[in-house]
Amino acid sequence: MHWSRWGDPAHAGPLAESAHTLVDTFIGTSDTPAVDPADVRLSAPLAPELLAELEAIVGSGHVLTDHESRLLRTRGKSTPDLLRLRAGDGSDSPDAVVRPSTHDEVVALIDWAVRRHVAVVPFGGGTSVVGGLAAKRDGYAGVISLDLQRFDKLVEVDRTSMTAVLEPGLRGPAAEALLAAEGLTLGHFPQSFQYASIGGFAVTRSSGQSSAGYGRFDSLVVGLKVATPQGTLELGNSPANAAGPDLREVIMGSEGAFGVVTAVRVRVRPLPEVRTYEAWRWGSFTEGAAAMRTLAQAGVMPTVLRLSDENETAINLAKPSEVGGESAGGCLMITGYEGTPAAVEAKRLAVTAILGGLGGENQGADSGQAWSDGRFHGPYLRDSLLDVGVLVETMETVTFWSNLDHVYTSVKDALVGALGEATLVLCHISHVYETGASLYFTVATKASDEPLPQWLAAKAAASDAMVHNGASITHHHAVGQDHKPWLAEEIGPVGVQILRAVKAELDPTGVLNPGVLIP
Amino acid sequence: MHWSRWGDPAHAGPLAESAHTLVDTFIGTSDTPAVDPADVRLSAPLAPELLAELEAIVGSGHVLTDHESRLLRTRGKSTPDLLRLRAGDGSDSPDAVVRPSTHDEVVALIDWAVRRHVAVVPFGGGTSVVGGLAAKRDGYAGVISLDLQRFDKLVEVDRTSMTAVLEPGLRGPAAEALLAAEGLTLGHFPQSFQYASIGGFAVTRSSGQSSAGYGRFDSLVVGLKVATPQGTLELGNSPANAAGPDLREVIMGSEGAFGVVTAVRVRVRPLPEVRTYEAWRWGSFTEGAAAMRTLAQAGVMPTVLRLSDENETAINLAKPSEVGGESAGGCLMITGYEGTPAAVEAKRLAVTAILGGLGGENQGADSGQAWSDGRFHGPYLRDSLLDVGVLVETMETVTFWSNLDHVYTSVKDALVGALGEATLVLCHISHVYETGASLYFTVATKASDEPLPQWLAAKAAASDAMVHNGASITHHHAVGQDHKPWLAEEIGPVGVQILRAVKAELDPTGVLNPGVLIP
Repeated sequence: MHWSRWGDPAHAGPLAESAHTLVDTFIGTSDTPAVDPADVRLSAPLAPELLAELEAIVGSGHVLTDHESRLLRTRGKSTPDLLRLRAGDGSDSPDAVVRPSTHDEVVALIDWAVRRHVAVVPFGGGTSVVGGLAAKRDGYAGVISLDLQRFDKLVEVDRTSMTAVLEPGLRGPAAEALLAAEGLTLGHFPQSFQYASIGGFAVTRSSGQSSAGYGRFDSLVVGLKVATPQGTLELGNSPANAAGPDLREVIMGSEGAFGVVTAVRVRVRPLPEVRTYEAWRWGSFTEGAAAMRTLAQAGVMPTVLRLSDENETAINLAKPSEVGGESAGGCLMITGYEGTPAAVEAKRLAVTAILGGLGGENQGADSGQAWSDGRFHGPYLRDSLLDVGVLVETMETVTFWSNLDHVYTSVKDALVGALGEATLVLCHISHVYETGASLYFTVATKASDEPLPQWLAAKAAASDAMVHNGASITHHHAVGQDHKPWLAEEIGPVGVQILRAVKAELDPTGVLNPGVLIP
Repeated sequence: MHWSRWGDPAHAGPLAESAHTLVDTFIGTSDTPAVDPADVRLSAPLAPELLAELEAIVGSGHVLTDHESRLLRTRGKSTPDLLRLRAGDGSDSPDAVVRPSTHDEVVALIDWAVRRHVAVVPFGGGTSVVGGLAAKRDGYAGVISLDLQRFDKLVEVDRTSMTAVLEPGLRGPAAEALLAAEGLTLGHFPQSFQYASIGGFAVTRSSGQSSAGYGRFDSLVVGLKVATPQGTLELGNSPANAAGPDLREVIMGSEGAFGVVTAVRVRVRPLPEVRTYEAWRWGSFTEGAAAMRTLAQAGVMPTVLRLSDENETAINLAKPSEVGGESAGGCLMITGYEGTPAAVEAKRLAVTAILGGLGGENQGADSGQAWSDGRFHGPYLRDSLLDVGVLVETMETVTFWSNLDHVYTSVKDALVGALGEATLVLCHISHVYETGASLYFTVATKASDEPLPQWLAAKAAASDAMVHNGASITHHHAVGQDHKPWLAEEIGPVGVQILRAVKAELDPTGVLNPGVLIP
């Protein structure tokens, strides 16, 4: 991972010439380079006597305090995170990076952290975009990054039950490779797939681009093993049961504040023999969304189902290499099908009949494949735009179908209201349910001299527009530090009391990811 | 509801002659009548000054202390519950029955109960079979039954999102009738359907006979309004989100111990145009179960899918009128299809192709329809058998497919070990998931002179066999008083700590259904 950008440093680069021209025309650009990584100011490393105690738990090779190791685990990948790092502010860095490899080592580390009152930030892929990796530092003897990268095994496959136990440090591609060797897939492909981890998917309730077919990550989890200051919690003896509240649903979404997940039992599916993607064109976002609703309520769902609004279709942000290319107008929908050839063909025919009947124009497989080829590239473009002084960020929400148009308009209006008319707001729907759908916004505007407060004001306005209008503060990005005020509004004071009570019970001294999640 | 039997008193009756002969031969019978209801010893009514305070909240017509009103809300409908009542023991009766009709009245009643330290038992349909209605009495100034029968409205229908808001006191048939008038269905048909309530379904994680098609009740709930001693909790702004732990999943399964649910937003579906049921015969339970697994993992699910084991098929308990009739041998499977004619036919063809390919013998629609006609009659037979000194009870569990055979055998062995060789154990699978399935056992044995301890010992042995072998203590009957020790084992000490922390936070004085759920 690049220290101040998304993804593989080898893929980081300047904005393509065509895009530069376009952006310059509509938004305006100005060179805004990042500082040299060596110049980022980090916290002081942990005191030597504490480091020695950590080495006694995990071995001397697995306690790191060098500049690069700590810099790479400083905050996540939101635009505010990157703005701070690009400006040289690494004040949220961990004071040490610790890499345990067993559940017992994690238990021992947590016990140590309680004893020494050191804050523990679980670290999987480092891809948080909500401030999930920026623990509160005040009042603690230090902050350690508990890096789970050595939890990288496929522990067990149960072919009869079609479940597998994965370790939390496995990143998306490694998990899929281990499962593919068994002829299996998890089917979880969020945009962060190439870097995000199994543990992170679970504790943030991630949702992937194939959620229509495979389900949200929380629906894929059947069991969890969690190390807490009170001891080990093991959950999940069955697909579903009536044995009281479902405590798996308390750990999922807990973002490291209740414990550290050390194993995840997930549903797995046969590796698809065929993967095919198609594009459809709709006259408007409203028409395309109504078609998605029809599919979901008829129970006829492709594996991938997404719809760009008019702006996103025109800008074609899904294919960064083609920004500025020609648009056919209207709204682009992607439908993807995965499975056996027979199942794919049957589903494709059923979906095609419905979409055709509703007035969709089939654009064939080329545009669909192009989306698939570029599906993980979006964040690279964001970072190239930051280089030229254009602020780009994404935010997302979810609501019921009857409220979708209203929330869509309200959030767009809030963003333009906060950032000015020369702001591009793009949107897509990428997660569809019987009762509602997500809305994923991409915003681009010219950075002011103070881009951080500029963005935070816009983010607050958009978040207000979501929650005041009855939508959730987040469909799949989680809460972190950034969404806490709106979470409090969303679940109300009694809901906040429940979260605080669980936190106080499991982590009474508050060493686990302090400041995150709990309002 | 009959005071000491399941269901409509008009339908209660003696065992059919053919069944009597059969049972006499295999188990033995002896007349064991219940006491006269007037002779059941109830608790003392609530003190007059407290009754006056209750009347000030809900109106004088809605505070009841007469013998019959309290008797009808004494305990639930498990065999131990009925054995106690039949013997004249009504010691768990409420001291008063209170019938609020608004959320604010429920809030006021809870505030009053906290002030007066009176235990509150929320009452929906009174169908608990796990001791969910037998609150701890010691240390309280009294016990009231908070009867939700006046919460009987369909509050709202959102046709775009396909959701509806139902009040918790609506029983199954009333809820379906209100929705049917709108062309909609909930599709939730547990065996308790005719009496159990919407609120009860939610707080016990009920699962219906059409769960393969419509889903478990907890998967149908999208929103909840809950009155707690800390105030009102409103949850559910979206189909799913990443805004921290899913607190709906904390209220579902909470059995009145965390608050009183006063409104439930559910997913609804179009009222099916066609309902058709078929029967299949399999050579063995193992073969039939493997076929169910194939369907679930292929994603080809009928609306109803159930399989009786060899014993249940032979005894034909699903059709009480035909007990003792001829059996074709093997294992009977029921497949049901509901929806539009086209959807039903497409699904039926897909299921038929898979089941036929696996060696199932299609028995046609007659046996399927016979199952459907008798689907709610089982409990009546149980009570006729109690009259002739035969102890009958059901219990259920759920586990992953790879563990299903082992749990099936272990529970059967435990029951026969505890009750003796002259014990009939029948079993069916009625809830099927990609990763596992439920097992529902019916046990019949000759009652000893002390039937209650006789049954409790057998129940303990079977529960041990479930939980020690990695299955859940309950798939859809919930925890109540009866399953608490096994819940504690199932979720472990840290899991118990979480439940206790939420309880202490929401209900610090412990007035809500005390003794239920929390180990």
